[in-house]
Amino acid sequence: MCKEYYMPTHLYMGEDCIKTNSSVFLQMGKKALIVTGANSAKKNGSLNDILAVLSENNQSWALYDKVMSNPTLACVYEGAAYAKAEKVDFIIAIGGGSPMDAAKAINLLACQDIPENKLFSMTFGSEIMPMVFVPTTAGTGSEVTSYSILTNDHLETKTSISSPILFPKAVFLDAKYTENMPIDITVNTAIDALSHAVEGMLSVRANLISDSLARESIRRIASCFESLKTGLLSKEQRFELLCASTLGGMVISSTKTTAVHSMGYSLTYFHNVDHGRANGLLLGAFLEYIQKSHPQRIKDILSAMRLGSVVEFKRILDELLGDKERLTKEEIEIYADKAAMSSNSKNSIKIPSKEDLIEILHKSLST
Amino acid sequence: MCKEYYMPTHLYMGEDCIKTNSSVFLQMGKKALIVTGANSAKKNGSLNDILAVLSENNQSWALYDKVMSNPTLACVYEGAAYAKAEKVDFIIAIGGGSPMDAAKAINLLACQDIPENKLFSMTFGSEIMPMVFVPTTAGTGSEVTSYSILTNDHLETKTSISSPILFPKAVFLDAKYTENMPIDITVNTAIDALSHAVEGMLSVRANLISDSLARESIRRIASCFESLKTGLLSKEQRFELLCASTLGGMVISSTKTTAVHSMGYSLTYFHNVDHGRANGLLLGAFLEYIQKSHPQRIKDILSAMRLGSVVEFKRILDELLGDKERLTKEEIEIYADKAAMSSNSKNSIKIPSKEDLIEILHKSLST
Repeated sequence: MCKEYYMPTHLYMGEDCIKTNSSVFLQMGKKALIVTGANSAKKNGSLNDILAVLSENNQSWALYDKVMSNPTLACVYEGAAYAKAEKVDFIIAIGGGSPMDAAKAINLLACQDIPENKLFSMTFGSEIMPMVFVPTTAGTGSEVTSYSILTNDHLETKTSISSPILFPKAVFLDAKYTENMPIDITVNTAIDALSHAVEGMLSVRANLISDSLARESIRRIASCFESLKTGLLSKEQRFELLCASTLGGMVISSTKTTAVHSMGYSLTYFHNVDHGRANGLLLGAFLEYIQKSHPQRIKDILSAMRLGSVVEFKRILDELLGDKERLTKEEIEIYADKAAMSSNSKNSIKIPSKEDLIEILHKSLST
Repeated sequence: MCKEYYMPTHLYMGEDCIKTNSSVFLQMGKKALIVTGANSAKKNGSLNDILAVLSENNQSWALYDKVMSNPTLACVYEGAAYAKAEKVDFIIAIGGGSPMDAAKAINLLACQDIPENKLFSMTFGSEIMPMVFVPTTAGTGSEVTSYSILTNDHLETKTSISSPILFPKAVFLDAKYTENMPIDITVNTAIDALSHAVEGMLSVRANLISDSLARESIRRIASCFESLKTGLLSKEQRFELLCASTLGGMVISSTKTTAVHSMGYSLTYFHNVDHGRANGLLLGAFLEYIQKSHPQRIKDILSAMRLGSVVEFKRILDELLGDKERLTKEEIEIYADKAAMSSNSKNSIKIPSKEDLIEILHKSLST
């Protein structure tokens, strides 16, 4: 199988990188739509920094701050209508995965006339506005992927749209915006990033470039495991986690995700479990499953974490995640069925059968 | 200092990746200029594979196979005139750093009217043709950089031109083309790649993303040290080295190179020392120099190689490089002077004075 790597986004990194690179915004256009959630961008200082730069540049803006966790189709269609009404010519997304994923879809829908029943068919034109992303959590990696993951009520899961036109032009990585994140979000997003890197190494699309990025992402996150348990993270560790998350995004840009994500989507859709946490709940049992057929791959992953066994890894995840959600036998059956049909599952180096998925879900979450 | 990472080239990897991705060429245009050297692309099968794909696609081509090692301005102006005369609309470069670097300059000069005395002034327009690169050595990393390094007789050194428009659109990494490389080229190119990754970690522009790529590049090359000594490399190792070289290119895309390269250019310009070998001859003493001010950085580099000391590393380089060239005191003085003025030297995390450079050259190469 021929493998690929592509990630054309320009990354700017370091404290105050928005302020010191204000000219980047000037290249994007005259008026921005700022896409964000209701609160965090206002609290962590990122929105203020963006507004200061736009004002300095004499650029105008409109604010769409209605993106919820796990954004819905209604949300992105509303955002697109607003973008059109405001006649913006570029998009700035600020926040975690939800605003960034929503911004990609809002952009696409503002530029192209795509009805809801065609949105997941993936036959898009090339019209798109330039995008600037400012991740303020360290987990999703959405800033360096071409994926927009949306809540799909029709299929009762989360479904992605994907196109190379959805890569942002520029990304600003400033860890100061992550400093006041609550500990549960810090942990869940770190586990999301870890899951991207680990799943990337267990994908049929894994390659020497993506593996290189994945090993470093894993190594950097694992170096923060102890601090994540206490929540006491230094400034440097926050930046390590932010970059590790971007590395994880660069990995899945190339490899996509695997069965962990497809099972996790049901936990989020039906039980409102945070996305990163959902992956973390399933990751240990998935590693045990893959270890049977591909022990060397698991050894590589554990060695990047400086761990000796999956049991050790599971113990760390257990400590980080605390009390687990529980699923009934019937729920497990339904979610395994959904996951078995998903393209993510088929992307795993060993494709789990429905029975395998039931076993993984059972080991992870049965009552 | 705000750091940056940008590398927009699409990589295709694996055996027969050219054949299995023939559609990539169709997106580039109707007629290609193939830029290569006189021999190797014909011998290693890469030219044949390209011609087969172009023929299958009904695309036409012209061949410019006059690129020498360390290409001259005369060569790239001649190539550009040929590209214009042949009315090509994309460029395919096949070979090591020389054809790839030449192809970038040929492309620029075919699209923009730039006289020789303005070529290094770096004020270019945006006109450029798409490029596809096929590296057939594992060292330069030129396939993922925006640099074109040319022989500059005016300054008696090698000088780079650089612009984001010089990134190729697509790159094909197939290690089978490197299988019949002579052992000295295999070693010299591997050391060139190693030098990129190591220098990238010693650059003021180093960042967590470039460091991640660099550590993996170093780790993969170091895992081949023993095989490089004997010249007995497996297919897998050839591919490891090819990808490590691409990772090294991704590193210097972000970090540029340091004083090692600026000193090495004199060895190449005045003594015809191969570029990778020139870097290798100087790398050990440069690490000793940096170790005094930045011991942790050197420790990080050595740990990626699984080595305990710079002395061990120097011993390995000595074994790989064999008998060293020797310089007179006068030559060392002149080359240190040239290197002290270069931008590469100023890019080092500790900027060496002329005296420091004399000492490094003296320790490395004095009679």
